[in-house]
Amino acid sequence: MASEVAEEWAQGTFKLSPNDEDIHTANERRLKELIGETAGKLHTGRSRNDQVVTDLRLWMRQNCSKLSALLWELIRTMVDRAEAERDVLFPGYTHLQRAQPIRWSHWILSHAVALTRDSERLLEVQKRVNVLPLGSGAIAGNPLGVDRELLQAELNFGAITLNSMDATSERDFVAEFLFWASLCMTHLSRMAEDLILYGTKEFSFVQLSDAYSTGSSLMPQKKNPDSLELIRSKAGRVFGRCAGLLMTLKGLPSTYNKDLQEDKEAVFEVSDTMSAVLQVATGVISTLQIHRENMARALSPDMLATDLAYYLVRKGMPFRQAHEASGKAVFMAETKGVALNQLSLKELQTISPLFSGDVSHVWDYGHSVEQYAALGGTARASVDWQIGQVRALLRAQQA
Amino acid sequence: MASEVAEEWAQGTFKLSPNDEDIHTANERRLKELIGETAGKLHTGRSRNDQVVTDLRLWMRQNCSKLSALLWELIRTMVDRAEAERDVLFPGYTHLQRAQPIRWSHWILSHAVALTRDSERLLEVQKRVNVLPLGSGAIAGNPLGVDRELLQAELNFGAITLNSMDATSERDFVAEFLFWASLCMTHLSRMAEDLILYGTKEFSFVQLSDAYSTGSSLMPQKKNPDSLELIRSKAGRVFGRCAGLLMTLKGLPSTYNKDLQEDKEAVFEVSDTMSAVLQVATGVISTLQIHRENMARALSPDMLATDLAYYLVRKGMPFRQAHEASGKAVFMAETKGVALNQLSLKELQTISPLFSGDVSHVWDYGHSVEQYAALGGTARASVDWQIGQVRALLRAQQA
Amino acid sequence: MASEVAEEWAQGTFKLSPNDEDIHTANERRLKELIGETAGKLHTGRSRNDQVVTDLRLWMRQNCSKLSALLWELIRTMVDRAEAERDVLFPGYTHLQRAQPIRWSHWILSHAVALTRDSERLLEVQKRVNVLPLGSGAIAGNPLGVDRELLQAELNFGAITLNSMDATSERDFVAEFLFWASLCMTHLSRMAEDLILYGTKEFSFVQLSDAYSTGSSLMPQKKNPDSLELIRSKAGRVFGRCAGLLMTLKGLPSTYNKDLQEDKEAVFEVSDTMSAVLQVATGVISTLQIHRENMARALSPDMLATDLAYYLVRKGMPFRQAHEASGKAVFMAETKGVALNQLSLKELQTISPLFSGDVSHVWDYGHSVEQYAALGGTARASVDWQIGQVRALLRAQQA
Amino acid sequence: MASEVAEEWAQGTFKLSPNDEDIHTANERRLKELIGETAGKLHTGRSRNDQVVTDLRLWMRQNCSKLSALLWELIRTMVDRAEAERDVLFPGYTHLQRAQPIRWSHWILSHAVALTRDSERLLEVQKRVNVLPLGSGAIAGNPLGVDRELLQAELNFGAITLNSMDATSERDFVAEFLFWASLCMTHLSRMAEDLILYGTKEFSFVQLSDAYSTGSSLMPQKKNPDSLELIRSKAGRVFGRCAGLLMTLKGLPSTYNKDLQEDKEAVFEVSDTMSAVLQVATGVISTLQIHRENMARALSPDMLATDLAYYLVRKGMPFRQAHEASGKAVFMAETKGVALNQLSLKELQTISPLFSGDVSHVWDYGHSVEQYAALGGTARASVDWQIGQVRALLRAQQA
Repeated sequence: MASEVAEEWAQGTFKLSPNDEDIHTANERRLKELIGETAGKLHTGRSRNDQVVTDLRLWMRQNCSKLSALLWELIRTMVDRAEAERDVLFPGYTHLQRAQPIRWSHWILSHAVALTRDSERLLEVQKRVNVLPLGSGAIAGNPLGVDRELLQAELNFGAITLNSMDATSERDFVAEFLFWASLCMTHLSRMAEDLILYGTKEFSFVQLSDAYSTGSSLMPQKKNPDSLELIRSKAGRVFGRCAGLLMTLKGLPSTYNKDLQEDKEAVFEVSDTMSAVLQVATGVISTLQIHRENMARALSPDMLATDLAYYLVRKGMPFRQAHEASGKAVFMAETKGVALNQLSLKELQTISPLFSGDVSHVWDYGHSVEQYAALGGTARASVDWQIGQVRALLRAQQA
Repeated sequence: MASEVAEEWAQGTFKLSPNDEDIHTANERRLKELIGETAGKLHTGRSRNDQVVTDLRLWMRQNCSKLSALLWELIRTMVDRAEAERDVLFPGYTHLQRAQPIRWSHWILSHAVALTRDSERLLEVQKRVNVLPLGSGAIAGNPLGVDRELLQAELNFGAITLNSMDATSERDFVAEFLFWASLCMTHLSRMAEDLILYGTKEFSFVQLSDAYSTGSSLMPQKKNPDSLELIRSKAGRVFGRCAGLLMTLKGLPSTYNKDLQEDKEAVFEVSDTMSAVLQVATGVISTLQIHRENMARALSPDMLATDLAYYLVRKGMPFRQAHEASGKAVFMAETKGVALNQLSLKELQTISPLFSGDVSHVWDYGHSVEQYAALGGTARASVDWQIGQVRALLRAQQA
Repeated sequence: MASEVAEEWAQGTFKLSPNDEDIHTANERRLKELIGETAGKLHTGRSRNDQVVTDLRLWMRQNCSKLSALLWELIRTMVDRAEAERDVLFPGYTHLQRAQPIRWSHWILSHAVALTRDSERLLEVQKRVNVLPLGSGAIAGNPLGVDRELLQAELNFGAITLNSMDATSERDFVAEFLFWASLCMTHLSRMAEDLILYGTKEFSFVQLSDAYSTGSSLMPQKKNPDSLELIRSKAGRVFGRCAGLLMTLKGLPSTYNKDLQEDKEAVFEVSDTMSAVLQVATGVISTLQIHRENMARALSPDMLATDLAYYLVRKGMPFRQAHEASGKAVFMAETKGVALNQLSLKELQTISPLFSGDVSHVWDYGHSVEQYAALGGTARASVDWQIGQVRALLRAQQA
Repeated sequence: MASEVAEEWAQGTFKLSPNDEDIHTANERRLKELIGETAGKLHTGRSRNDQVVTDLRLWMRQNCSKLSALLWELIRTMVDRAEAERDVLFPGYTHLQRAQPIRWSHWILSHAVALTRDSERLLEVQKRVNVLPLGSGAIAGNPLGVDRELLQAELNFGAITLNSMDATSERDFVAEFLFWASLCMTHLSRMAEDLILYGTKEFSFVQLSDAYSTGSSLMPQKKNPDSLELIRSKAGRVFGRCAGLLMTLKGLPSTYNKDLQEDKEAVFEVSDTMSAVLQVATGVISTLQIHRENMARALSPDMLATDLAYYLVRKGMPFRQAHEASGKAVFMAETKGVALNQLSLKELQTISPLFSGDVSHVWDYGHSVEQYAALGGTARASVDWQIGQVRALLRAQQA
């Protein structure tokens, strides 16, 4: 008969009554209609306290799997794009100042790598979600000899909770999930911020597809990066849920208090938000158009000043002096009103006699990035290594 | 000569100069005094961006180990106490209302078990702290072919960072550490709250040792639970650091921005706080005095109403009906102005004919707790099982 | 025709079309159906940017008035109760330790006074809500010579915004409102926490009416203070909204960004929560039952130790010495195993010769509270003064 | 003799003893050395609970005045600059997309106006700081008939607290101050973010003076906007303190609990931070160099599309149609690969016959901004009005 009730739920024919307090009493009431008083056995050895937290864990376990899949899909999309556009160079920024030439793929991977930590953490959260509290009763445990390890096996949980008082009232797994989401959103927000900048008229490196931007009600010439702004804004909301729950938890005494029911709305809202945001991010990345020529045009010789220093280092000069020599060259070029690579060999030699004809190789952006061949750098081989590493990580996480 | 500089630091004879920008330039300056311009090679292939984050990771790696040790010590102290006082019964509360009799050890273990999740999480955080960013330069990587895997081995890191842009600017490991601390403090705060309550005149279950309480400047009869209040208050401060850093991180574009230097004060302050709080908590638990007779006196027959229902369940009545029958007994006792266990068998039989002479066993608190023998419950065997499980966890974590 | 559209809204007959982007385009579309292309004039000199923020301010202005009324109602309920139960004494606590006898009304007023600060702050927030941004366009202002001061007068705003860029993108009034709610909830949460404690078996000072408490699904003898727990838990949620919005605002560049649309859900949810919580709090306070005899029984002579010191002060002893002398008496009583008021005059005189027969007056709780007659204290006259002050404040705020 | 102790403090000759618990016991101990046991009268009718909160209020009252002065100085600097550079035009952005031409002064004023709300709020916070709790004792009030209104007058407070329990334990004024700082920092952070963007190579609108920027240890060509990044980062830290204190307050029962001592570090740190940040911001604004020619060059005809629509509106076309017509012109120009102002009159007339020769006036940026003459807009007269309004506000606030 229990299967009959299940069938009604599956068919959408189960009718809730206004007197049903929750899903558990509804099922029991329906069963009673079908089989009589014996249905009253359903609540035996149970308490709402251990039931609701079991329900929440079941829901979250499934939801974590869904979010993992969406996150992997996003990372995969990014890695594929990084592989395809590996030969595009553009400025790398620190402090939002142009710093050194890097590969566009290196930028993509910097965000993809951050997201792999999120997917790793989500698996850890899920591991702690997947622990069975059923059989804890309201506080003292179960008095009817229920075999909790059997329940665990049947419900496919990874472990059982150790202490009934803790089991019914701890919401670590909720707090962890909300913090996981907050940190993941921080990554997505930083990526969105970059793309919003790169999409300005001033940078003009990228352009959102129409599906992910919106017109202005007042200015017909504008296309606003609404999708990215929404990603950015949701980071605040998600963090707010995390902060709110922690504040609620912090002020509680031991065991179950009604305050804990705040957990569900937080989890549901944050799950929905994460699901939407991850899909939007995947859509943005996969449809984004890049302006290679603008990216190339944004590279300027002064971004090679560090390479000029390294040139001298390779000739044997200690780095500190080389850095100073390169600084002098930058200053000389500025004073003369020419680009750094317009300084003549003779002029450079007034700064250091170590400069010779081969200094001309320094001014090649492609040559520049290829120097950064140590693991994790922006050289092509190193970018390929990164792609391989991230793909291997995904395979391992999905295993 | 580098070893000479190291020796000066070890001896405390290293003299900082007002012009030293940071520890790295100080070392280089000192080395230059000793060996001349060649010291300028020290910064080769490095950037402050990858150096400071490497320093921070080195510091935090060690600090996480220290905090783990303090946390284990606290858990061990709690488990030892739980084992020693296993036969003490007192009321278990939900919603701060007396619910069911439980073992005092069951309460201790409920908090110890929560802390084992913190120690598990701290190891995960430490794993992500223990990743080497050195060789990432300022943004593009290292151009001099440094062997980062060799550096990793020499500096005893678990892995190397994958992408140089991400490596110099991600502070996930800091955010995770601060959140770890926030959640751990939430647990300690909840335990402190319980003990503050149990130490009131009204509860009178426990008494803090003099070393952990303080007199009043106005009221000579009072002893205030200052140690516990400090634990409770620090939860707010620690969370504040976590929230503050997340807000700072959230608004940043890619790569290194000066904003990131907020990370260090947060980490240092929170580390110091955690270290102090964990030691105070250990001191409180190990010196706490319990009032067994007050605990026993606080148990009352109405707390056995659930057991009365289970008595009927064991006689074959569906739980829902048994719960109602027990409720009727509670009401009858209230109406007659007697304790629940003062109802005569005859009176009980007006509620259900299933009541018979053996109902008298229900009124024994020791018998009551022994029913909760399912794993995680408050029966003696189950408490012993918990003690064994927590000890095994500690051994595994310390491995 | 605009009035016809308004009528449709009023009658509930306005039909939204799937193509309506928002309320403004819906109205324009409907007007166009009624009067043709001229309806297209409706958006003249406007932008969604200044319209949505005007809408929000209109809504919040009205809502602040509603919340003020609910808050005043709660304060009034508390003050009335304080007046009615002015002669009930019970223990005042600091650090949750029994400190000194106080009037129950003094406790009620301590929370009522806190809430008057909230009602004062809400009026200040409302003042800043009530500023008109209309006529700011999207960013640059209005190019058609709209008379913003006329609009202000017609829409009954207190002022107009000063700068169009700021006007369309600042959400200070939202952040302020959310913080106002967070601080108000902190007060309500602290009051709820007190009442939960006072309602425990151990304190037994108060009892919630049935309408504001709930039974247990497992324990028939229990009544849980759900209403108070919900108040307490909502403080976290409301603060979370405040924290979330601030994080979103913090990371934005100047002027309108889509991120700002997060403001509305936060405002609506928090407004609903505040409205519900204030009404529940009023209901709890007005139906709460107090147990006077338990309150009286909880007073014990050791709570008069401070008064004993003041007795000596009145005889001319410096307070510091008097505090010590009183401490000695407390210790002597503890050592002898008697209550503080059981010490004989002779015994007291071994501590100080200033003790004489009139020390017996010290042991009268009614006499004790009457000493605290300075403004703000717990003497009857001072409590009456407080009641008068709070009522005067309410009258002033409602003016 | 009390004046002798005060003199010792003033001279810096007061010697603290290791046994002094706090400033109050130190003063009493010293007075006792000077005049004997009578010094013990000093604590009469006082409690540490009302003393520490009085101390804090005294300190904060003075500090709020200092911060107000610094804030006014910053606003004045901004307004002076706005007045001086009123004729500089540059792009106004929404969604970080170029929107419409505005005056540079309009941008400055948008931030100055936001700061006037902060200075208004700070005065309100200070009003609530400036309330005297002395005479509240530990909880019950003062039993020796102290005249609190006299104390208020002597200590120059604006009011006295109404209830002794509330007075010793409420920290609303601290929470309000921390939130005031958080919101003010949000404004400064948004301004800093704008300036960081405007200082990028891509925007090149502004350049920080050397005193407020720093070189790179690796890249000799770079100057990083460290001062602005520090402002931006401090917003997180300050908010963290606010969040931390609120969490601590939220979990407390009534009256004084040791947890409250967290208030002081938060106030001191945030005060120091605000003081430093306000001065740095003033320095940045007063020394900032602007690149007028780059600002002018960044204006492009497509930013006048809205004005083109308004041109048609002035000819009688409903705005909605005018917006569409202008959109068609933008599209036509894009299709033809010419700037919007390069479309011939004939081409425009294919879109609407309302276009005539005077459309050429639309393409003048100076003419464009002058249209926005409604109060709060970017026309010169409106900018002057704003300057006048802000100066009047400052005068009123300083009164």
